Amino acid sequence: MTSRSHYHALCQQFKTIYHFEHLQALGDWDQATMMPAGGSQARGEAMAQLALHIHALKTAPSLAEHLAHAADEPLSAAQQANLREMRYQQRQATALPGKLVQAKTQLTYACEHAWRAQRQQNDWQGFKPNLEAVIALVREEAQILGEAQQLAPYDALLNKFEPGTTMAQIDRVFGDLKIWLPSLIQQVQAKQQAWPTKALPHATIAQQKALNLDVMTLLGFDFKQGRLDTSSHPFSGGVPGDVRITTRYDEHDFLTALFSTIHETGHARYEQGLPLEWRGQPAGNARSMAIHESQSLFFEMQMARGTGILPLLQQRINHHLGCQISELELQHWLTRVSPGRIRVDADEVTYPCHIMLRYEVEKGLIEGRLTVADLPEFWDAAMQSLLGLSTQGDYRNGCMQDIHWPVGELGYFPSYSLGAMYAAQFSASMQNQIGSIDALIAAGELTLVTQWLQDNIWSKGALLTTDELVIAATGETLNPAHFKQHLMTRYL
Amino acid sequence: MTSRSHYHALCQQFKTIYHFEHLQALGDWDQATMMPAGGSQARGEAMAQLALHIHALKTAPSLAEHLAHAADEPLSAAQQANLREMRYQQRQATALPGKLVQAKTQLTYACEHAWRAQRQQNDWQGFKPNLEAVIALVREEAQILGEAQQLAPYDALLNKFEPGTTMAQIDRVFGDLKIWLPSLIQQVQAKQQAWPTKALPHATIAQQKALNLDVMTLLGFDFKQGRLDTSSHPFSGGVPGDVRITTRYDEHDFLTALFSTIHETGHARYEQGLPLEWRGQPAGNARSMAIHESQSLFFEMQMARGTGILPLLQQRINHHLGCQISELELQHWLTRVSPGRIRVDADEVTYPCHIMLRYEVEKGLIEGRLTVADLPEFWDAAMQSLLGLSTQGDYRNGCMQDIHWPVGELGYFPSYSLGAMYAAQFSASMQNQIGSIDALIAAGELTLVTQWLQDNIWSKGALLTTDELVIAATGETLNPAHFKQHLMTRYL
Repeated sequence: MTSRSHYHALCQQFKTIYHFEHLQALGDWDQATMMPAGGSQARGEAMAQLALHIHALKTAPSLAEHLAHAADEPLSAAQQANLREMRYQQRQATALPGKLVQAKTQLTYACEHAWRAQRQQNDWQGFKPNLEAVIALVREEAQILGEAQQLAPYDALLNKFEPGTTMAQIDRVFGDLKIWLPSLIQQVQAKQQAWPTKALPHATIAQQKALNLDVMTLLGFDFKQGRLDTSSHPFSGGVPGDVRITTRYDEHDFLTALFSTIHETGHARYEQGLPLEWRGQPAGNARSMAIHESQSLFFEMQMARGTGILPLLQQRINHHLGCQISELELQHWLTRVSPGRIRVDADEVTYPCHIMLRYEVEKGLIEGRLTVADLPEFWDAAMQSLLGLSTQGDYRNGCMQDIHWPVGELGYFPSYSLGAMYAAQFSASMQNQIGSIDALIAAGELTLVTQWLQDNIWSKGALLTTDELVIAATGETLNPAHFKQHLMTRYL
Repeated sequence: MTSRSHYHALCQQFKTIYHFEHLQALGDWDQATMMPAGGSQARGEAMAQLALHIHALKTAPSLAEHLAHAADEPLSAAQQANLREMRYQQRQATALPGKLVQAKTQLTYACEHAWRAQRQQNDWQGFKPNLEAVIALVREEAQILGEAQQLAPYDALLNKFEPGTTMAQIDRVFGDLKIWLPSLIQQVQAKQQAWPTKALPHATIAQQKALNLDVMTLLGFDFKQGRLDTSSHPFSGGVPGDVRITTRYDEHDFLTALFSTIHETGHARYEQGLPLEWRGQPAGNARSMAIHESQSLFFEMQMARGTGILPLLQQRINHHLGCQISELELQHWLTRVSPGRIRVDADEVTYPCHIMLRYEVEKGLIEGRLTVADLPEFWDAAMQSLLGLSTQGDYRNGCMQDIHWPVGELGYFPSYSLGAMYAAQFSASMQNQIGSIDALIAAGELTLVTQWLQDNIWSKGALLTTDELVIAATGETLNPAHFKQHLMTRYL
């Protein structure tokens, strides 16, 4: 064996893992979009078996041995980055017993499946025991992952989605937000009070589909490498050569589907733009979930609610829906700040409130200060305090609205707010380097905007750490001031 | 370890295999229905990896050891049947090297993917080298499987789909057919010459979808355990709790989609009706492909082209298509005998000619008497001789029309004709036992027809061998006289 062979053996092993993760992505997508109810049990068992197998591949003694020796080999910087990502995945997997991985997959599949009907029926009593079982397992997971990394349990969960993130960091960022956000919301609402309110035009699902596909094309989605479907909770799934995004339609509110689609298109272009030469290796993956959300929110908030793209959206909406919406009407719809119960429909100013609430809930659940039974009351109180809304008895639009808890993904929510902040920071940097998004798009140069993302974010995969990536693109690490500046510029 | 534990260990191992086969079924279905072109390479690699893994599970030394000891354990008759099916699967897998399994999966995925476009473009020159590579691998497979079972190579391929079938048996059956079928075709055509010809009404895809779903419901398809989609080649896939059938639409010929759907519904009900208590074990699978085709052809030919169901179909067609087709017109369409180039669109009288042609081609290719380069000429000569049709230059409706060869499934085609014969035999038995299909359906007792299939075929899974199953249901093994009788009764 030559000294280089350990690294190459690792590449082979991770390529195999990648193939099985391909099947995992397919199973997840299919379950949410295509699978009939009767398929649930067999699918849950198959996915649990698959998770166990992937876990076994990542925890194989031979993999650990190659990892131990590969660091001594003469590797390029990129190969070293790949090795860093391999080591991270291996450590995360090795910390957890296979039985727990398998049990969690099976339990969350069943919980999510039941949740879909339970949410529709506002059935908190039916959902509660399922969620309790999931939370119990996630607490166990957090405990084990935390011990392995010498992290607090909830920090360990944060690290699953954004390596390096801590409660201390989030607390600081959110603490700052809590100071200036409430008064900003009040100021914006006062300013917008004079805006006329007009109902959205009715739009059939067929019209909306055509509109969404057209806007995806405008935004550079490659349909040879992906598709758009319908699911009860919009998401982006699939694999880099075959990215599958979803939306859901409301005939009385075409903007909910359109802006979900734009959001997911941001995720999709990130995946479609990952470095081809690293495909199948850990370094070829997207950097992290906060960076992923920064791309979707860059598309949804920075780009698609700005003034540059407005006439392009207006023209497509009027064409597909057969209506006569003015630019001003559209702008009002896209930037109206209005506290509501649903996170995914929230405007970008009130959105962080939804995340802060969930963050507090998750910390409480993991640290044992809160039980699932406490959730509705806690939720209602927090919504009252943060946004002045009562959610009493409305579980489906309250603590049952998100897919994250039924599938056991605690620790994810902060990625949305970190993503919104990174998106504003990227936007500011882009403005300094090549011009503002709005000016570029107004000048017919939308592709320059996405090219900047391609060059600075997408093509980097996971070759850099989050901090390295953000510094290379913007000259500094996370700086929430850009987000504050963005909101004030756009909304005041 | 107690003596019974070997059998139970085997059940565990085969349950694991079943879970991975679930993912295989999903990957296959998705590739044919949903996957964009860009997903092809990664999917092919993932599916090859999966095939290799399943192969490794089936050839594991521990599995062989449990198999060797389980036969000495005190097992029920059903458990012994399960053990027989386990042993068969293990032997088939063990005979083949893993590398060949992986290579074949990857090669056939690529070949099928390219074939879809090549077929549309009538691109024989593009398809030829791909097919040559597939045939070379299948010849190797046939050679190895044959040596392991002391069978001729093509017999080994036949055995993959219908264990126990031999060329000697097929030659006998087809030899007999060749004697009486040509004159029957002539007689029927002469009789039908006086039938008026009327064009089918135009039908949108939306109308046809609604019609097909309605007819599937009529035929007892359980939509909680399955779905209908579109693909370029209709097929039945998925898993027992989640059976996925496909069709393809032609606005000028709604019957092609409708009867594909009815055919696949027969396959689907077989899968949906398999014994729940054996799900996940080899004995819980469908018996074989000839028996599978007997169920699809029972639905498509015995049931749906008979006089009993005619008014039920007529009513649904007129309702969904907004037309006024008479019972007689519909009956003429459904029973008109007319030689054509396309197997899947063939009437049941000329259908065996399509199979006999393919059977001769496959034997020739495997035994080395024929090369892929010879195919177009051989095809044209055979079509001229069997059905009086020239297919020169028309590859897409000639030797490029079927999916079986691009995916490397040589040895399958005879299952269709064996299936047609078994279907006629089941129909005759049913008539003796509870009444004719037509009489039962005319009396509003369609469910008695499917209940007979449920009791005699579907619920048996693979607990009986094909001969045992057929004898239990009909009192004799395969008897082609019933098929001949059926055609003469219906068409003369």
